[in-house]
Amino acid sequence: MSPAQLETRWREALESSLTSFLAAYPAGSADGLYDPIHYLLSLGGKRIRPVLALAACEAEGGSVADAMPAAVAVELFHNFTLMHDDIMDEAPLRRGRPTVHIKWSENAAILSGDVMYTLALTALEGTPAPALAGVLQLFNQTSREVCEGQQSDMDFETREHVAVEEYLDMIRLKTSVLLAASAAMGALSAGASASRVEAWYRYGLNVGLAFQIQDDFLDTFGESGSTGKQVGGDILSDKKTLLWLTTLADEAGEQVLKAWEGKSPASGTEQGESKIAAIRSAMLAAGADREAQDRMSTHVAEAEAALDALGLTEDAAEWFRGLARHVVSRSH
Amino acid sequence: MSPAQLETRWREALESSLTSFLAAYPAGSADGLYDPIHYLLSLGGKRIRPVLALAACEAEGGSVADAMPAAVAVELFHNFTLMHDDIMDEAPLRRGRPTVHIKWSENAAILSGDVMYTLALTALEGTPAPALAGVLQLFNQTSREVCEGQQSDMDFETREHVAVEEYLDMIRLKTSVLLAASAAMGALSAGASASRVEAWYRYGLNVGLAFQIQDDFLDTFGESGSTGKQVGGDILSDKKTLLWLTTLADEAGEQVLKAWEGKSPASGTEQGESKIAAIRSAMLAAGADREAQDRMSTHVAEAEAALDALGLTEDAAEWFRGLARHVVSRSH
Repeated sequence: MSPAQLETRWREALESSLTSFLAAYPAGSADGLYDPIHYLLSLGGKRIRPVLALAACEAEGGSVADAMPAAVAVELFHNFTLMHDDIMDEAPLRRGRPTVHIKWSENAAILSGDVMYTLALTALEGTPAPALAGVLQLFNQTSREVCEGQQSDMDFETREHVAVEEYLDMIRLKTSVLLAASAAMGALSAGASASRVEAWYRYGLNVGLAFQIQDDFLDTFGESGSTGKQVGGDILSDKKTLLWLTTLADEAGEQVLKAWEGKSPASGTEQGESKIAAIRSAMLAAGADREAQDRMSTHVAEAEAALDALGLTEDAAEWFRGLARHVVSRSH
Repeated sequence: MSPAQLETRWREALESSLTSFLAAYPAGSADGLYDPIHYLLSLGGKRIRPVLALAACEAEGGSVADAMPAAVAVELFHNFTLMHDDIMDEAPLRRGRPTVHIKWSENAAILSGDVMYTLALTALEGTPAPALAGVLQLFNQTSREVCEGQQSDMDFETREHVAVEEYLDMIRLKTSVLLAASAAMGALSAGASASRVEAWYRYGLNVGLAFQIQDDFLDTFGESGSTGKQVGGDILSDKKTLLWLTTLADEAGEQVLKAWEGKSPASGTEQGESKIAAIRSAMLAAGADREAQDRMSTHVAEAEAALDALGLTEDAAEWFRGLARHVVSRSH
C-alpha cells in the first residue's frame, strides 16, 4: 500500500472507532453534557496524533486494534485541552466555528471538557493488558506536561522578558509531548522495547516542535480561509511567539514591537489591521520568518534521525518521513 | 485498636502519603500551576473518601499501602471537582476561605483543577498490578458519573419541575458514587472478589446518599461557624434540594417557595435573611426536615445491611457502623 492508502486506512479505522466509542455517550443525554463533545469532534481537525499512534503501532508489528484505545484517547484528550484552552484564551473561533464556551457557556465548556478527559481515560482502558500500566504512566506524565505548557503560555503573556529557550520549552510541553506520547503509546501498545519506544518518542517530539513553530507561523503569515482561525491573533495579543522573540532581538524590530505593545485593537478594525501589517513587516525585516524556517528544518532532520535509528524498511518509514516534511509545508 | 485509634492511624498514613506525593509538584513551580492545589488541600476537609478506601482494604485483608494509591487519587479527584464546581456555582467560600477562582482567577482554577485530576490518575498508577485495570475502570466510570451529577445539579436550577426521584438520582451521581467507589477501590486493591467489592460499593453508596442529604440539611439548618460555608446558600439560589422539593409538595409550603422564587438577594442583606427565615419556617411546617431525617435513616439501615452481608467480625465492622451513623449526626 502507498503511504496515502495506509493513511486512509488508519483514518477510516479511527473515525469508525471514535464514532462507536462516542455512541455510548449520545448527544442529548445527561442534560446535554455530551453535546459539546460531539460538536467539537464534528468540526474535524487533523487527527495527526491518533493516526501517528496507529502508524507507530503497525510499524512495531502490532495491529490497528492494539493502538486504537490510545489513539481514541489522545484525540479526546487533545480536544479536551482545546475546549478548556479556548475558555482561558477567550478564543471566539475554533476551526472556523464558534468555540464551545461561546456557543454554550463557560460552565458547559468546563464540565464537558472535564468529562471529555474522563472519556479519554475510559478509551485507554482497552489497551492490551501487558501495555496498560506503561501507557497510563506516559499518558499521565504527558497530561501534566501539557497543563504546565498551557500555564507557561498564559504566564508569558504578562511577563516582561521571555528567553527563546523558555519559549521553546513551553511549546515542547504544550504541544510536542502529546505528539511524542502518541507515537510512543502506539509503540508501547505493540509491545515495543523501551529503547524503541524512546526513539518513537523522539521522532514525535521533533515533529511536534516543528508542528508548533509552523502553527505560530501560520497564525501570523497564514490565510484565514485556510486555517479557520483569525490570522494575526497572536500579534494582536502581543503573544511572545518565536517570531515575536526573534524580532525583539532586532533593534528596528524591537522599536516596532514596543510601539504597539499593550495596544490590543480588535481583529477586523482598522487599528487592528494596522498593527498586524506593521508587525508582520518588522518580523520579515528582522528575518524572523527565516529563523523559524531554519528551526523547523532542524527538527525535521532530528525526526528523520530518530526514524533512521529505528531501522525500519524504507516502505515502512516512508509515511513517517512524509509526515515530518508535511507539518512544515502545510498551509493549514 | 479502638475504632478511633484505627482512624487516627489511617488519617496519619494518608496525610503523610498526600504530603510526600505532592512534594514532587511543589508550590511555586510551573509558574504557580500547583499553588492552588496545595492551598485547597491545606484547607482540610473531612478526608472521608480516602480513609474509607484504606479501611475497606484492611477489612479485606490488604495493607494500608495497597490502597494508598486509590486513597490519594480519590482525595485529589474530589478536590479537583470542588475547584471546578466552585467556579460553576460562583461560590465565594470553601471551608471558610476564599475559593481558588476568587483568590487566583477563573483560569487558574480551570487549569489547576485539570492538572489536579491528572495528579489523581498519577497517584492511581501505584495500585497493585493485578488490581490496576479494575480500579482504573471504576475510577473512570465514577468520574463520568460525578460530571453527570454536576450537570444535572446545574440543569435543575433552571428547570420548572424536578421530581424527588430525579433529585435523588442527581445526588447519587454527584456525591454518593465517589464514596461507593472509594470503598470498592479499597477492596479491589486488596484483591477482594467481585461480590464483596459490590457489597462495599453498596455500603459506600448508602453512606454517600445519607451524607449528601445531611449536607443539604446543614446548608439550610446548620450554623455558619460549624460548616465553614454560607448557611442558606441553597435557599437563596432556589436550589431544588430534597427539602425544597418536599416543601413544594405541601400547599402552604408551595405558596412560600413560589413567592420567593427568582428573588435572589445577596447573603447577609436584610432581604436575604428574610428569604432564608421564611423558607426555613415553611420547610419545618411542611415536615421537610423530618422527611430528610427519615430518608437518611433508611440509607443508614441499607449501609448496615451491606456490612452484614460482608460478614465482618464485630471488631472490624465497628468503625464502618460508626461512620454510617456519624454522617447523619454530624454538625459540619
